[in-house]
Amino acid sequence: MNADSTPSPEPAVSLFGEPLQVVNVGIAALGEAVATAAGAGASVVHVQWRPPGHGDPAVARALAKLVNRAEVELANAEAFGRYLEAQPVLEGIAPARDVVPGLGDRTLLHSGPPIAWKDMCGPMQGAILGAIVLEGWAGDLAAARGLAESGGVAFAPNHERQAVGPMAGVISPSMPVWIVRERSRGNRAFCNLNEGLGKVLRMGANGPDVLERLRWMGAVLAPALAAALARMEPLELKPLIAQALHMGDEVHNRNVAATALLLKRLVPALLAAGLSARTIEESVAFIAATDHFFLNVSMAACKAAMDAAEGCAHSSLVTAMARNGVEFGVRVSGGGGRWFTAPAPVVDGLYFPGYSKADAAPDLGDSAITETAGLGGFAMATAPAIVQFVGGSAADAAAYTREMGHITLGRNPAWTLPPLDFVGTPAGIDARKALDTGIAPIINTGIAHREAGIGQVGAGITRAPMACLEQAVMHLAQALRD
Amino acid sequence: MNADSTPSPEPAVSLFGEPLQVVNVGIAALGEAVATAAGAGASVVHVQWRPPGHGDPAVARALAKLVNRAEVELANAEAFGRYLEAQPVLEGIAPARDVVPGLGDRTLLHSGPPIAWKDMCGPMQGAILGAIVLEGWAGDLAAARGLAESGGVAFAPNHERQAVGPMAGVISPSMPVWIVRERSRGNRAFCNLNEGLGKVLRMGANGPDVLERLRWMGAVLAPALAAALARMEPLELKPLIAQALHMGDEVHNRNVAATALLLKRLVPALLAAGLSARTIEESVAFIAATDHFFLNVSMAACKAAMDAAEGCAHSSLVTAMARNGVEFGVRVSGGGGRWFTAPAPVVDGLYFPGYSKADAAPDLGDSAITETAGLGGFAMATAPAIVQFVGGSAADAAAYTREMGHITLGRNPAWTLPPLDFVGTPAGIDARKALDTGIAPIINTGIAHREAGIGQVGAGITRAPMACLEQAVMHLAQALRD
Repeated sequence: MNADSTPSPEPAVSLFGEPLQVVNVGIAALGEAVATAAGAGASVVHVQWRPPGHGDPAVARALAKLVNRAEVELANAEAFGRYLEAQPVLEGIAPARDVVPGLGDRTLLHSGPPIAWKDMCGPMQGAILGAIVLEGWAGDLAAARGLAESGGVAFAPNHERQAVGPMAGVISPSMPVWIVRERSRGNRAFCNLNEGLGKVLRMGANGPDVLERLRWMGAVLAPALAAALARMEPLELKPLIAQALHMGDEVHNRNVAATALLLKRLVPALLAAGLSARTIEESVAFIAATDHFFLNVSMAACKAAMDAAEGCAHSSLVTAMARNGVEFGVRVSGGGGRWFTAPAPVVDGLYFPGYSKADAAPDLGDSAITETAGLGGFAMATAPAIVQFVGGSAADAAAYTREMGHITLGRNPAWTLPPLDFVGTPAGIDARKALDTGIAPIINTGIAHREAGIGQVGAGITRAPMACLEQAVMHLAQALRD
Repeated sequence: MNADSTPSPEPAVSLFGEPLQVVNVGIAALGEAVATAAGAGASVVHVQWRPPGHGDPAVARALAKLVNRAEVELANAEAFGRYLEAQPVLEGIAPARDVVPGLGDRTLLHSGPPIAWKDMCGPMQGAILGAIVLEGWAGDLAAARGLAESGGVAFAPNHERQAVGPMAGVISPSMPVWIVRERSRGNRAFCNLNEGLGKVLRMGANGPDVLERLRWMGAVLAPALAAALARMEPLELKPLIAQALHMGDEVHNRNVAATALLLKRLVPALLAAGLSARTIEESVAFIAATDHFFLNVSMAACKAAMDAAEGCAHSSLVTAMARNGVEFGVRVSGGGGRWFTAPAPVVDGLYFPGYSKADAAPDLGDSAITETAGLGGFAMATAPAIVQFVGGSAADAAAYTREMGHITLGRNPAWTLPPLDFVGTPAGIDARKALDTGIAPIINTGIAHREAGIGQVGAGITRAPMACLEQAVMHLAQALRD
């Protein structure tokens, strides 16, 4: 049923004396029933609408309190302005222990909201065990499990340490992290380095080859990149991402252009840094073969920008969406750092041969920080080729971007989308608008096997649970005088 | 006036007893007149149609002879099949004199169909003079002009020497050329190396800085790249171009992704080739700063593919479109190497600040070999960001690609376009179809200043003159028995 139904010149319902032209709001079946009764002559325009908060009166009341409320509007303008002004630059690389705040001797960071060892999903436990062996806190995976179960390791979310990590997101003290500074406010953000695809720690794999690669990254790749970055001006990430968006990346699940642009900047500095030819060759070959290499830089840039927007009292701007494989967590600028959580969904997607949704861990990783910053799924219109990886069509990709424009505070003029005639990407998710429209934020994501030790099994598209946004709105409403 | 006009339930022309639904073919004004007479109730669908050959009976007769003619259909199937099967690989780099056939001691190659010195446009003369000084045949530009005017230099089109060159397209014996082999038939194609943008020989600039850069390219860059390529497997260009098309390049006026992909392949080989660090640094820095660097590789790949399709008697497949700044020339597979020419158009486009169409040389260069092979303007749907360089909107870019589908023999499944849901790019221009539909092949192109020595003044979109295709069709018709 749509607005293009062919009208007939004969009125079908004689009561009205002319053909019916029906506008139906909400439940589609009602409009269809009217159209059927009216006969072929009626044309029906269907307006999508659902009651805010799925009809929950408490949510609707909270929402009503927040909409057009001066405190919220001003706070959102401040928070969104800080996001727009953010200037993330790539400053360097260092071991996590040297730069990430509050990373104690026996602390491991992980993705998503806080979670205890016993509650963690398979791939996160797998990554934790691998990291324990990598750090030398246990001699093998079995001993590592004993250590984790006995409380010998402390855990904290990346997001509470100025950090982010894709999928399991495990950052251990010796792991190198990208250092991104947000120039306008001075805050820093960190992300680990991308290991490539397939059997990798972030997907829960933890075999000897996985740890060997991580050791090489710490001993060879990271010092080489650090030496190169030390010779360069801090690399402006906003224009680099802008250029990648014009080259078909959305810098979440498609980073092939951004990685090539980063490599182009790094190579001359690597050559000039007095490194051995073998180190340069190995490093360049690894990056050249790792099309997702830029993802972790993108995530740190987005984290830096969203952290700049944190802490505006009463603001309903979403500053983090992150998943630990069990729970999906959302933070808003005016939420005082609280997590608003709901069960993490299992992702509908394209599964690798031999795998299906039954093999999938629920949604996992801090990488939805890209969507939080208007990239990833929000910018999919500019990355039609990604549908080969996450499913759907080019038209779907454009539709996702258009849809997200209904729930954001604005658009980011620094990140334009050529297929939509260079409109800025929709950015700054407003929890109020998501609830009011019933449109949940879209996220495109990788999918890990639900068991430890296996790795990636697919990629696809999912949405933030509306329950997280409902809690955020309820919290913001309670904090406002009536 | 279009098919979406809102119908009224009241018939406006009582003669017919119901609202008119008009299909108008050809001149739009007639349909509009009927619609006006019929009143608001009439809906008019306008079908674009023009008489083939602009109404010239001789062209129409020639076309009628060629359409659905077994000899032509079979020849086109053969020629298009050869194009589809072409597997261009990058084999190496060498001085033109060592590899380009028939390049005598005092011969210079140029773009487009054949032309004498006195008839050449300003930028081509400028490039010729620069090349004469570069080769040491004259001590300065004034002496070079004397030599050219006195007949001391022979000229030949690139296309008649298995070569292509962008804009003026001048190739002199000492200049390095890319060597591309078409694996399925064994033929080779050559193209010079890209000098960057701005004041460059191909745009007619010929000052000391231009020649200095060309000397460095011959002495440092080309030997380094040759050493790197010698260490690599011959580089498959079809999949590399396919990937670049998924990254927003159309590999004619947008080559930023393809250049990055090429650099990613070259760097490890450069590092392994035992070159000095300074040579590697300079070479990588030059390529990294030259977003059009891949253009000349793309052109050689397209030339190799279209040469593979040459020589099929009676085939109306266009195998070359090339411009010398005075004449636009077309060749067809069944044309026995003949050029079918017409005056080169001046390009409507985006001009750099301080310049206008009055400053422009007419359409220039062999780079339309990319459109001939289904790339460039034909693949613009996948490169919406290019409209910032050549003008128009993202919707225009998609419309050009869709339009070209009406005049090609098919689509190239190796080169898919994500924004059109991965349909293959329209490829294999059929001169018959262009005349039958009145749709001229689209080309996006750089624009040189009309005087020697200045350089690029803009970029834009143009079309092949229909007169070239008319001559080709007349020639093919004459060669067929009645």
